[in-house]
Amino acid sequence: MIKVGLVGGTGYTGVELLRILVSHPEVEITAITSRSEVSKPVSSLFPSLRGHLDLVFSEPSLSNLTACDLIFFATPNGTAMKMVPELLDTGVKVIDLAADFRFKDQAEWSQWYGESHACPELLSEAVYGLPEINRELIRNAQIVANPGCYPTATILGFLPLVENNWIDCSQLIADTKSGASGAGRSAKISNLYCEVAENMQAYAVPGHRHLPEIKQALVTVSGLPVGLTFVPHLTPMIRGIHATLYANLLDSDKSLEEIQHCFEQRYLEEPFVDVLESGAHPQTRSVKGANFCRIAVHKPQDRNTVVVLSVIDNLVKGAAGQAIQNMNLMFGLSETTGLEFAPLLP
Amino acid sequence: MIKVGLVGGTGYTGVELLRILVSHPEVEITAITSRSEVSKPVSSLFPSLRGHLDLVFSEPSLSNLTACDLIFFATPNGTAMKMVPELLDTGVKVIDLAADFRFKDQAEWSQWYGESHACPELLSEAVYGLPEINRELIRNAQIVANPGCYPTATILGFLPLVENNWIDCSQLIADTKSGASGAGRSAKISNLYCEVAENMQAYAVPGHRHLPEIKQALVTVSGLPVGLTFVPHLTPMIRGIHATLYANLLDSDKSLEEIQHCFEQRYLEEPFVDVLESGAHPQTRSVKGANFCRIAVHKPQDRNTVVVLSVIDNLVKGAAGQAIQNMNLMFGLSETTGLEFAPLLP
Amino acid sequence: MIKVGLVGGTGYTGVELLRILVSHPEVEITAITSRSEVSKPVSSLFPSLRGHLDLVFSEPSLSNLTACDLIFFATPNGTAMKMVPELLDTGVKVIDLAADFRFKDQAEWSQWYGESHACPELLSEAVYGLPEINRELIRNAQIVANPGCYPTATILGFLPLVENNWIDCSQLIADTKSGASGAGRSAKISNLYCEVAENMQAYAVPGHRHLPEIKQALVTVSGLPVGLTFVPHLTPMIRGIHATLYANLLDSDKSLEEIQHCFEQRYLEEPFVDVLESGAHPQTRSVKGANFCRIAVHKPQDRNTVVVLSVIDNLVKGAAGQAIQNMNLMFGLSETTGLEFAPLLP
Amino acid sequence: MIKVGLVGGTGYTGVELLRILVSHPEVEITAITSRSEVSKPVSSLFPSLRGHLDLVFSEPSLSNLTACDLIFFATPNGTAMKMVPELLDTGVKVIDLAADFRFKDQAEWSQWYGESHACPELLSEAVYGLPEINRELIRNAQIVANPGCYPTATILGFLPLVENNWIDCSQLIADTKSGASGAGRSAKISNLYCEVAENMQAYAVPGHRHLPEIKQALVTVSGLPVGLTFVPHLTPMIRGIHATLYANLLDSDKSLEEIQHCFEQRYLEEPFVDVLESGAHPQTRSVKGANFCRIAVHKPQDRNTVVVLSVIDNLVKGAAGQAIQNMNLMFGLSETTGLEFAPLLP
Repeated sequence: MIKVGLVGGTGYTGVELLRILVSHPEVEITAITSRSEVSKPVSSLFPSLRGHLDLVFSEPSLSNLTACDLIFFATPNGTAMKMVPELLDTGVKVIDLAADFRFKDQAEWSQWYGESHACPELLSEAVYGLPEINRELIRNAQIVANPGCYPTATILGFLPLVENNWIDCSQLIADTKSGASGAGRSAKISNLYCEVAENMQAYAVPGHRHLPEIKQALVTVSGLPVGLTFVPHLTPMIRGIHATLYANLLDSDKSLEEIQHCFEQRYLEEPFVDVLESGAHPQTRSVKGANFCRIAVHKPQDRNTVVVLSVIDNLVKGAAGQAIQNMNLMFGLSETTGLEFAPLLP
Repeated sequence: MIKVGLVGGTGYTGVELLRILVSHPEVEITAITSRSEVSKPVSSLFPSLRGHLDLVFSEPSLSNLTACDLIFFATPNGTAMKMVPELLDTGVKVIDLAADFRFKDQAEWSQWYGESHACPELLSEAVYGLPEINRELIRNAQIVANPGCYPTATILGFLPLVENNWIDCSQLIADTKSGASGAGRSAKISNLYCEVAENMQAYAVPGHRHLPEIKQALVTVSGLPVGLTFVPHLTPMIRGIHATLYANLLDSDKSLEEIQHCFEQRYLEEPFVDVLESGAHPQTRSVKGANFCRIAVHKPQDRNTVVVLSVIDNLVKGAAGQAIQNMNLMFGLSETTGLEFAPLLP
Repeated sequence: MIKVGLVGGTGYTGVELLRILVSHPEVEITAITSRSEVSKPVSSLFPSLRGHLDLVFSEPSLSNLTACDLIFFATPNGTAMKMVPELLDTGVKVIDLAADFRFKDQAEWSQWYGESHACPELLSEAVYGLPEINRELIRNAQIVANPGCYPTATILGFLPLVENNWIDCSQLIADTKSGASGAGRSAKISNLYCEVAENMQAYAVPGHRHLPEIKQALVTVSGLPVGLTFVPHLTPMIRGIHATLYANLLDSDKSLEEIQHCFEQRYLEEPFVDVLESGAHPQTRSVKGANFCRIAVHKPQDRNTVVVLSVIDNLVKGAAGQAIQNMNLMFGLSETTGLEFAPLLP
Repeated sequence: MIKVGLVGGTGYTGVELLRILVSHPEVEITAITSRSEVSKPVSSLFPSLRGHLDLVFSEPSLSNLTACDLIFFATPNGTAMKMVPELLDTGVKVIDLAADFRFKDQAEWSQWYGESHACPELLSEAVYGLPEINRELIRNAQIVANPGCYPTATILGFLPLVENNWIDCSQLIADTKSGASGAGRSAKISNLYCEVAENMQAYAVPGHRHLPEIKQALVTVSGLPVGLTFVPHLTPMIRGIHATLYANLLDSDKSLEEIQHCFEQRYLEEPFVDVLESGAHPQTRSVKGANFCRIAVHKPQDRNTVVVLSVIDNLVKGAAGQAIQNMNLMFGLSETTGLEFAPLLP
């Protein structure tokens, strides 16, 4: 059994990790920390876990964590980087679900996250935890940077086209829509039911932190400069990301069938990426609560613009599920262990 | 492995049964019938099942079903009763998720369901599938009538008080609220998004079919006449029932602590009934996607009125989950097999 | 033109007052105060008002307010009582949409609102602003206490039965459901989209502040002691209150027709109370955005329990609309001025 | 008073027309037809109109309509074209809210709407009812084709850039999101609450009927060929369209300030188009229930891609409100008459 600790167990990513981990056959949850909720039963905060988990929140101290084999950080950005160096020294493995270890470039991290990085020397060591790109590196990593939700949906949607150099990478567009759980469980007016329900809006159009994360991944894959217009939207639903991706074909004769084939081949062996039949329209609810990314490709009116539709559950394949997928890889388990459950529909 | 067939696999109860059954370790799904969708892959109707189920819909013919050990009927009321007698003759076991076998009194059934019963001789044989009342009978039943969603939440909420004869059964009130999936996956204007969202209303106040079902169960338990005012409401959410129950104590000196103790004792051994601490307010989302009923009791202002709050997921403990709980009992499995997963929150 | 000031213009009640007032033909809005938003255009906080209102928020100082003919307080409980005495001295009229002046009994106010009342001497002078009960008093009032949202729906639902002494007032039940805007525009985790959507729950069952407010009104009307069990629920919608009311007839022979007739007669002349045909089920959306209360009565199974269904928009007839109805009365306008618009459906 | 008739009063566009018209000071509604609901009071179908409208539905016969000055058609596509020629002959004016008269090219209409046009000779006479483009033509029109909802939001968003020839019209992208009322009040499974809530998906990516409508308008304005990728999405809200528009600047040195200025100048005199400050993110709810289009422009990372955000209420500026705006123009009224009300927020 893998002894697992969770730092920051009071947000939506945290409770989602716990939901999946309590049914994981190879995991024993040994510590859940929260500075603000010390000694309170986890199930008092999340009654959904009554009968599944008997732990109380503990202090996020080193001594509470070093007995674990693996620590998940489900903390705000900027928290993990202050604790991780010491933890790694004790031999513990770490998966950070926040952004602290996602960038290779320390200056870029500081620019987008607004502070100096506390352990820049670890940035090169940390593996970007998208198994569909970095599976082998993840297996051997001591620290994994779990990707952001938008980046997961967007990168998986562009990936086959970029790897094959079929599209003009200087003019990519990602129009992305997220459920409100992506904004986290924090008491802000903009997250209130009466602000989100019956409403839709774009946000952060001038620049969102997931833009450089996506660009870094696509540049790494393509070896080319990437120009990306990234427009996220807040949508009145709890879970789900729908990425609508636009790219221009370098060879406009490339047919929809060829594009479809390209995606099917690329993801043939991937357990958690599902390419729908050509012309389909994936629904976010078709992955609700489950660790899938479903993708469909289009070439409307046979013009040279490819449209890729990519959906995930932001809390699962976009956060907690992918983190557990990474854990499985890091500990030599079958990659799908504990993640085989079907989505909840309706 | 139990060979399971499903008649009527195109509604919300059907897809929920499939979601749970595909992860059940002792079940093999061998037939799913739908007259309207013959030969179509089940996953084309429910993309959430892609990768989990490879079956196509077949004709609901006897030959397609008699190879099964157990048939679930997730059909409209009045369908199962026409097929069940023949099936039982072949030795197959049956769980009907509709209302055909829920009433003991044939005349009452006809009165509420508007047609003659096709096999009244089976009504006495069929067991009302609420394990918290009829566990031993279910173990030995060939045919189980799975309870309605409102009755499950309401009966479990009143049960300890009725069994102990603590309340005036002639003046019960059940004010119940249901998510829209309770109305089924049928193309009616009243079920449209734009009719249900941002709206709330009572319906069927003059008389709802679950009223006699609840009364029958409470009369059986109490041995007394039952007077029940039952008011269901349609609520803008997909899943969930919240039953708010009101009863007058026969002895108004009975304290909240005594009532709390009574509930805790009654459900101490029940794997799927969770009594919250006194004064709590259960949320429907605390059971979303899972087979629990959570209950809290109140005695406001220490008056003689008891208020019981009881929540379930109408598609799980109120339908598919309870049906699988019954299946586990009928086949000698541990009652919780395949039902241990945690609720989805948020 | 009536010169109107608004103290506390940053909540949902405030913006709803402004929405209605900008189209009111006899009103000029001259001041909107908010300590936290001084000098900010009101329309920057509420873009829905762009083009309708050019004011900026100002300090809630006496000098900014005494030039007004009428001040609305849309502030948290306990705020108005600290400013009102001075304002009244200058001759200004006041409508408080919070609870400060709703109770006649100073001790009861303190018990439920947790502090001493700042001007108990005004409690007897303040008129409870439910026009259907106190129309003449309101016309002559200098200070009106605008009723709570639950009380408006509940009192109007019970009123004809109580006035006629047809029901047992010692055993009333009000099972009420509210949209999330009733909880206000405050940054609390329990108000987040992801906490409210796809969820339903009761709250404050041991005792809610609207319980004594309802009781006070019904006692005043009936002259009898009132026993009331009041259970509010939070519902995943923005606007709307649905009150489901239960009472036992003193004379169980009273027919549904008689009850229907009683309601129709009582509200025949009321411009904003609409009695539906017997057996109807009012929808909250049938009053969305408008100043109506719609009511239907039932006598299920002809037992002696009357069920009354009463719906309002909590922000309109339950708050801002009723306040403007009161304003119209206080200033000798036609009661419906500026309130004739139809509900928004869907 | 303008005598107004409404053909097809049972859908969401119909009830929205009625909501606005009952408060319009210059309109008398004299006939509402519906083949299926003849003799039924309109308010029995739409209780929101109780107290505002006393009409019953009548047969859609010529004799019921020719006494009117103006007929609105809120019927399915293909209905109006069968009745309009006869009506026009009697001198009645017509506004069709469906698509029958939106295209100039008869062959293109047939291609996208799947049948022959019943009166192609009227296509050149009909005026496309977007006042921001065709105000003078509308004033003198006998028949107006009210624009589609997506086209209204999209055309108004691209218009200043296209008129000034600042963007590459061969590569436009419109990623649009609509509330569910855009799908109409028809009993289809895909419109059910449980199918739409907590879900998001694109649809009709290979080709949506609003694509040629948008192209026709932009071609007319620009005089150039237009290449447009149009991807509509279904969003879990009742009302609202959010159009996110992408275009490449022909001169990439054009600054955001210049673009902002261009939009502000273009819409300076427009009563119903509101250009937000540069960098803003309009919310669909900021126009809920009102006849506005709000627009914001962005130039992310100062690259050569312009992003325009354009929001409307699909039932108001996208349908009924715009139709009444057109009526005002056709009858010489002030363009804003009866349309001055503020949006409903929250």
